[in-house]
Amino acid sequence: MVIENIKPAEIEKRSFEIIGDELAEKGISLDAEYEHIIKRCIHTSADFDYAESLYFSDGVVETISDALQKGCVIITDTKMAQAGINKTKLDSFGTTTMCFIGAEDVARDAKERGVTRSYVAMERALILDRPVIFAIGNAPTALFSILRMMEEERYKPIAVIGVPVGFVNVVESKELLIKSGIPCIVNRGRKGGSNIAAAIVNAIQYTL
Amino acid sequence: MVIENIKPAEIEKRSFEIIGDELAEKGISLDAEYEHIIKRCIHTSADFDYAESLYFSDGVVETISDALQKGCVIITDTKMAQAGINKTKLDSFGTTTMCFIGAEDVARDAKERGVTRSYVAMERALILDRPVIFAIGNAPTALFSILRMMEEERYKPIAVIGVPVGFVNVVESKELLIKSGIPCIVNRGRKGGSNIAAAIVNAIQYTL
Repeated sequence: MVIENIKPAEIEKRSFEIIGDELAEKGISLDAEYEHIIKRCIHTSADFDYAESLYFSDGVVETISDALQKGCVIITDTKMAQAGINKTKLDSFGTTTMCFIGAEDVARDAKERGVTRSYVAMERALILDRPVIFAIGNAPTALFSILRMMEEERYKPIAVIGVPVGFVNVVESKELLIKSGIPCIVNRGRKGGSNIAAAIVNAIQYTL
Repeated sequence: MVIENIKPAEIEKRSFEIIGDELAEKGISLDAEYEHIIKRCIHTSADFDYAESLYFSDGVVETISDALQKGCVIITDTKMAQAGINKTKLDSFGTTTMCFIGAEDVARDAKERGVTRSYVAMERALILDRPVIFAIGNAPTALFSILRMMEEERYKPIAVIGVPVGFVNVVESKELLIKSGIPCIVNRGRKGGSNIAAAIVNAIQYTL
């Protein structure tokens, strides 16, 4: 009954084959440049909606790939997204993940200013001396914070992975990100999540 | 354009109202006993499929609530699920989260035995002297491991939250869990995830 000897690599290979087969059955063909990323989002969620809602700005995958290999910082909005990013290869590139959401000074600043902790946590990029990729899977206010810093020309990240999930301000925050012109990967609509943010980072790094 | 002063508590309240309204529009009414859990899974994923695929064994919410308040261990299969569980209230109950997936001895044992790390990581429950709730959001082999320990009468957890996601052995592992008779919360079908496992734990603890 119970099957013990299944190898994870085999499970993953077979899973991607099933995803490919079912996309073909649905008549969906993916752009080869983004296929590995879209399939990994489907793999992470078992949700085929990701086949049609992910947006990629021109050249963003190459931009992110370069930065990951040169040693950058990936700032996430949640510890969950940070935990989901595979560290082994990134470590070898000198790329680090950081998440400031739980820092005491972030909580204090947020309270004083009447903004969310996510909003303040993004501004911690300003004190880093390395290039930053933001990976946002939860908070639209994190995207608003990044957009505000860019508008005011206080900060410019390398790229933004903007896949917050939810029902309030989420759709709007993602459309504003696309309009901003920053290199970005966005899941249009309500869906997304910390798991999706991590899956996108992992899909890109696994090709390097 | 950009809105800084949105309070997280207000966003969450409004989100749950929207979810309630849209469920009503779809003609779906939820069992009051499970409503808070189902809605939180929808909130976490923006996926209304969770309104119809979550399974709850009789009395499982009370069983989990009791255990959380008495000080138990929640063993997760991923660091992501562990990271997503809110610790503040659990700490006050003396309840702890643990995840053994990254332990060196787990990797070594798994290699020697030709099983997955998730399979071995579950067996670490055997060396704990406190009651255990498993929260599984990723690996069907984690569920197989728990089922095997129960079959062989080597171990009996308080309850299992079984919401692995994916395309290979996932559906089967969840049906076997339901059939086992252990108190469980399961998302039938392919969907689930570390975010969903954490959301279920959080939904329950937020009522305590």
